[in-house]
Amino acid sequence: MMSNTTTTNSEAVTAGIQAILDPRSIAFIGASDDVVKWGGVLLHLLQKFNYQGAIYPINPKASSIQGLPAYRSVRDIGRPIDLAVITIGVDGVEQAMRECAACGVRAAMVVTAQFAEAGPEGAAKQQRVLEVARKAGIAMIGPNCMGVLNAHQNLALLNSTALLDSFTSIPTGRIGVVSQSGAVVGAMIARAGHVGAGFSSCVSLGNQADLEICDFFDYLVDDPQTGVICLYMESANSVDRLFSIAQRARRAGKPVLITKAGRTPQGARAVASHTASMAGTYETFAARCRAAGVLLQTDALQMLLTAQALLAFPLPPAQGVALFSGSGGAGALGSDALGDYGLVPAELGAATRKALGEFFSESNLPLPYDMGAAVVGPGKGRADLMNASIEPIFADPAVGCCIYIMTPQSSMPDIARLFTELGRRHGKPAFVVNSASGITEKMRLALIELGAPFFPSLHEAMLTVRDLLWLREVEQRSPDAAPSSHAELPAALHDFLRRQPAGMLSEDDAKKMLALAGLDVAAGALAPDARSAVALAQDMGYPVVLKIVADGVTHKSDIGGVALDLADADAVRAAFERIERAASDLPGARFLGCLVQPMVKGEVELMIGSVYDEAFGPFLMLGAGGTLVELLKDTQLLPAPASVADIERALRSLRCFPLLDGYRGRQPADIGRLAEIAQRVSQLAAALGPRLPELDINPLAISGKRAVVLDARARWAAD
Amino acid sequence: MMSNTTTTNSEAVTAGIQAILDPRSIAFIGASDDVVKWGGVLLHLLQKFNYQGAIYPINPKASSIQGLPAYRSVRDIGRPIDLAVITIGVDGVEQAMRECAACGVRAAMVVTAQFAEAGPEGAAKQQRVLEVARKAGIAMIGPNCMGVLNAHQNLALLNSTALLDSFTSIPTGRIGVVSQSGAVVGAMIARAGHVGAGFSSCVSLGNQADLEICDFFDYLVDDPQTGVICLYMESANSVDRLFSIAQRARRAGKPVLITKAGRTPQGARAVASHTASMAGTYETFAARCRAAGVLLQTDALQMLLTAQALLAFPLPPAQGVALFSGSGGAGALGSDALGDYGLVPAELGAATRKALGEFFSESNLPLPYDMGAAVVGPGKGRADLMNASIEPIFADPAVGCCIYIMTPQSSMPDIARLFTELGRRHGKPAFVVNSASGITEKMRLALIELGAPFFPSLHEAMLTVRDLLWLREVEQRSPDAAPSSHAELPAALHDFLRRQPAGMLSEDDAKKMLALAGLDVAAGALAPDARSAVALAQDMGYPVVLKIVADGVTHKSDIGGVALDLADADAVRAAFERIERAASDLPGARFLGCLVQPMVKGEVELMIGSVYDEAFGPFLMLGAGGTLVELLKDTQLLPAPASVADIERALRSLRCFPLLDGYRGRQPADIGRLAEIAQRVSQLAAALGPRLPELDINPLAISGKRAVVLDARARWAAD
Repeated sequence: MMSNTTTTNSEAVTAGIQAILDPRSIAFIGASDDVVKWGGVLLHLLQKFNYQGAIYPINPKASSIQGLPAYRSVRDIGRPIDLAVITIGVDGVEQAMRECAACGVRAAMVVTAQFAEAGPEGAAKQQRVLEVARKAGIAMIGPNCMGVLNAHQNLALLNSTALLDSFTSIPTGRIGVVSQSGAVVGAMIARAGHVGAGFSSCVSLGNQADLEICDFFDYLVDDPQTGVICLYMESANSVDRLFSIAQRARRAGKPVLITKAGRTPQGARAVASHTASMAGTYETFAARCRAAGVLLQTDALQMLLTAQALLAFPLPPAQGVALFSGSGGAGALGSDALGDYGLVPAELGAATRKALGEFFSESNLPLPYDMGAAVVGPGKGRADLMNASIEPIFADPAVGCCIYIMTPQSSMPDIARLFTELGRRHGKPAFVVNSASGITEKMRLALIELGAPFFPSLHEAMLTVRDLLWLREVEQRSPDAAPSSHAELPAALHDFLRRQPAGMLSEDDAKKMLALAGLDVAAGALAPDARSAVALAQDMGYPVVLKIVADGVTHKSDIGGVALDLADADAVRAAFERIERAASDLPGARFLGCLVQPMVKGEVELMIGSVYDEAFGPFLMLGAGGTLVELLKDTQLLPAPASVADIERALRSLRCFPLLDGYRGRQPADIGRLAEIAQRVSQLAAALGPRLPELDINPLAISGKRAVVLDARARWAAD
Repeated sequence: MMSNTTTTNSEAVTAGIQAILDPRSIAFIGASDDVVKWGGVLLHLLQKFNYQGAIYPINPKASSIQGLPAYRSVRDIGRPIDLAVITIGVDGVEQAMRECAACGVRAAMVVTAQFAEAGPEGAAKQQRVLEVARKAGIAMIGPNCMGVLNAHQNLALLNSTALLDSFTSIPTGRIGVVSQSGAVVGAMIARAGHVGAGFSSCVSLGNQADLEICDFFDYLVDDPQTGVICLYMESANSVDRLFSIAQRARRAGKPVLITKAGRTPQGARAVASHTASMAGTYETFAARCRAAGVLLQTDALQMLLTAQALLAFPLPPAQGVALFSGSGGAGALGSDALGDYGLVPAELGAATRKALGEFFSESNLPLPYDMGAAVVGPGKGRADLMNASIEPIFADPAVGCCIYIMTPQSSMPDIARLFTELGRRHGKPAFVVNSASGITEKMRLALIELGAPFFPSLHEAMLTVRDLLWLREVEQRSPDAAPSSHAELPAALHDFLRRQPAGMLSEDDAKKMLALAGLDVAAGALAPDARSAVALAQDMGYPVVLKIVADGVTHKSDIGGVALDLADADAVRAAFERIERAASDLPGARFLGCLVQPMVKGEVELMIGSVYDEAFGPFLMLGAGGTLVELLKDTQLLPAPASVADIERALRSLRCFPLLDGYRGRQPADIGRLAEIAQRVSQLAAALGPRLPELDINPLAISGKRAVVLDARARWAAD
């Protein structure tokens, strides 16, 4: 429930969800004979899929509905009711809820729409219904939801065209789905039947007036029928709880997959018009998912394939991928797709190559395997070939996972069966791909029978493999390792910050803050005029740097406010005057002087920053220094505080990492040292939270063991 | 034919291809009753799909084959034979070809394998068969090919599981396919039936001993049944001819789509093991495709959807995309997918918004259209809503193309029909997407009936839209505009180059070459010792730059061989000594002195280079200056010579383009001037061809109108 701020569900919430997902009796308020109406279709589906509990249709105008005796009101039933399904018009819902309250109904599913999603008037109605439910201790899902499904209880209480028109059984399995969109879960159910994915429970949340996404998420972690959890989200209200449940799921060995809309500006705009709530920044949400080992997906339908793959096979035990095809052309295109997803063909061992030499010529020995190029000797058939040539590849320790790109052939179902069985026997994912739906019907059914996913495109197979390999990497980290240690800030830093007014800190103050936080900062002093600049430079020793200090100026180099490598007094004087002139040209800027610093040259430069996201909390940001990297968006984001290990991994993921790693004869930076400095920044960001909306150290100059803050910007929001 | 170096097919080649793709009579050498054998399946397919020409099975051991009277030999037929299909064992093919020659057979399709693809022995056999065919004027396709298909002539001479097991008619339409892989064309046929794509002709090339890809490509340009041409390639032997035919296709209004394997290192490795021939660099091939208006695709199966979309609708008349869905969630995910492909939602005009106001609340007015959010007033049905709300969007001039993301609902076929018809009426592509195969069967069939493609994934729909918008942009360029002018190089440059030995040019020589080619080059002079360096600096005026000149050193700054901004004699002396010391530490380097240059500072720096690709010719390369851009691979490649307009477009496509365009208060570079300089480099590369394998100007320093070559490297291969 929205008010529930603890991590795990209270007993009441758990019992309420159980009454919704596994009810022994259902009252249908608004039951109808017309299956075009909600009250008709849901009742029809319940019976079509053979729900075993009691069903009480409520309809004051009929004595029977869809063959069942009907009641005038909930009050007339006279037996205990676990779940009331409400599909009547919006203005009758409050009264219906009162009747449920009077009869001790345990939970209500309000399908009816035109509540909060329709504007303030609807929101008021929703609030009144909620108050009645809360007072009576009725757990409520909805309003404006499409319903729920519990495949293992034959409970099809979800308005799905696929269930209505196409399926003869509910796609049953171990995938649990909770969705902020009813149509998305409907589309997932429709697709599941095709790709061989099966559900434990599916939940369409609706307006989340009472029960919300985290309540169901938490429930599924403990649900024995659920092995993988998939969430579709558009917004997140209780993010800390979400990720704390995700951690619990991870400990329970249940992978969590999330698709969150609003990933691109186009999508964010669509979400904003679809939901009223704050979406947060997708990048920061993604960073939290990465840190929590949650598999963030871009497509709710693709999510099914990855989830089913996780249930059908263990995680790949090695990085290498072995690609098989019935033709050289398909193998070549498949190899290109491997490259697109950063996957690497396995390098087969000598024993494997020897075993394969029986069937393949030397030039056909490296992957991908063109099964069409195999030469089957006398007295042997295709089945011998498959077994004797494919099995050594599955057995090779360099192979983590196998993909068969099926070109149309009549033996497809047999190959698919053999391939899947080999995958199971060797504990390695074995995926079969074919884009020619219709042709592959028998093979698809063979895979579904085995509980293995059917991949209708290379793209989806490669995405899945990439994701499984990522999960493998996550598994190798310890799930219980504290993500990072929070650190107490020094008292002097608190004192200093207490004196700062809200707004941009001057470069000098930003650096003072960082020095107090324990960073090595390029010393410097403010010179109000050229003469004192020269005097300061003389004291420090040449060469020096001058930087403008002026109210209203933050991007100093953009306006000619920085002069580097000044070798003598004349140069300092000339530069000071040039900067002062530049400042006088700027409307609104108040020139205070120049900062004089010794010229420090780093072998390499790094950008370290932090940002506070209102929705998702504090984050550390890393990138190579300079304007270019900003332009090319080569940055990494981590929830703050971050561990040194995670920071090192993030640094190595930067495309510009080679610059830090001894590129073209440069001295390599001490990555461990950099990670420690970045960790300190992340601890500062975590400790200050919303009071430090942004911090930007650019550059941090690195030269061997030493790393010095040359420039810094920070915004301070005070308390 | 390989020997054909002219652009268009000779009459003999055209007649030969016609005998293959539209034969009046076919002799089957190796005909069989067993449909598992090649000679059985092809004969069976011919009859299954009702081929109208004469069929003569040849089999010395049978009197009839598959119900047709059989002949002992081609010699026994006694009537004119257009095409001989040869499926017998490899060692009988030469003799069979001799018999064909003796009987005046016009063309031969050699399905038999174990020729050149199997090694040197097979290559010798292939050569002997080819010689017999050439001598007799028999046009030959194959050997080792999977056959051909001409849908409009009911000619199914291609071994396809889909044709054999699933289809009752050949997917017929206006897509012509030529493929270097039989399995790829087989998979395309299988998928075509599902997504609603139809063929004119399909060709599996096999080993291309005689007829090769360009011969069939050229034929299809003139084939009235073909509207779009799709090629699947692994290697290209006659690239100039390929692109010259592509230009002819463009003038004929037939879009050309190419999928070329070997796009990633993984794919290139697979291609190398699959075909013996030189693959060339994918990037350079892609650059030639872009310049020629050829749509390079990454997936042969996706290619079908784009091809069918091109046939079903005109190109989008505007950039904006209008997204429709039956749910807010699907619309949000769809909008994210728009963002992934760089597509932009249309900004609807006031008239459209007014018309839609009848059905949608203000907050639901911006795209994407959540049709589920529409409010249908009394006396109106869903059909009124569809017509009255969707039509204004199709009519809006900002909308170039519409996509409907269908969530499962029973009205899908009707909506798909209406949507497609609106697209046709308004001359705008209208695509329908649904990933839930099985559920959407009726809708899929409705679309196929209309000749419109069915999109089984958002990914494929977005790719298609992106490609159509690119073709629209290409169409807006004139197809007949000369891509660029070749330029005569000055005689002095020729004289200079004639004196150069093969190998890396010294920086000084590389700059001389560029100066002679008309570029502005930073003046400089070689100082063999520190004393003369100081003297030269004094003459030029401080500050100066010193750069190492040494045999065996090309990446000067990597080894500490560059000193910038030297302000006086002491600094020059110290730098010279430091560089000389650095050189003495390098094994194999012979120190010749330092280049002394005035210090020129550019506001912005650019990298301009050229590269000669053995397979695909000379190219111009553009990027921002410095090592970082190289690391981040932010470069653009254009065939040389390139036009100023194309170069400008390429510069604007660089991710780092903002740096050139007045980023954060910098002075914007004169892009036209830069393009002219780059054009001169491209002309140099084109004129010198393989004699200039690589050239690298980095940086070109730009400051207002002036652009000076500060450093250059070049490799000279002499003649």
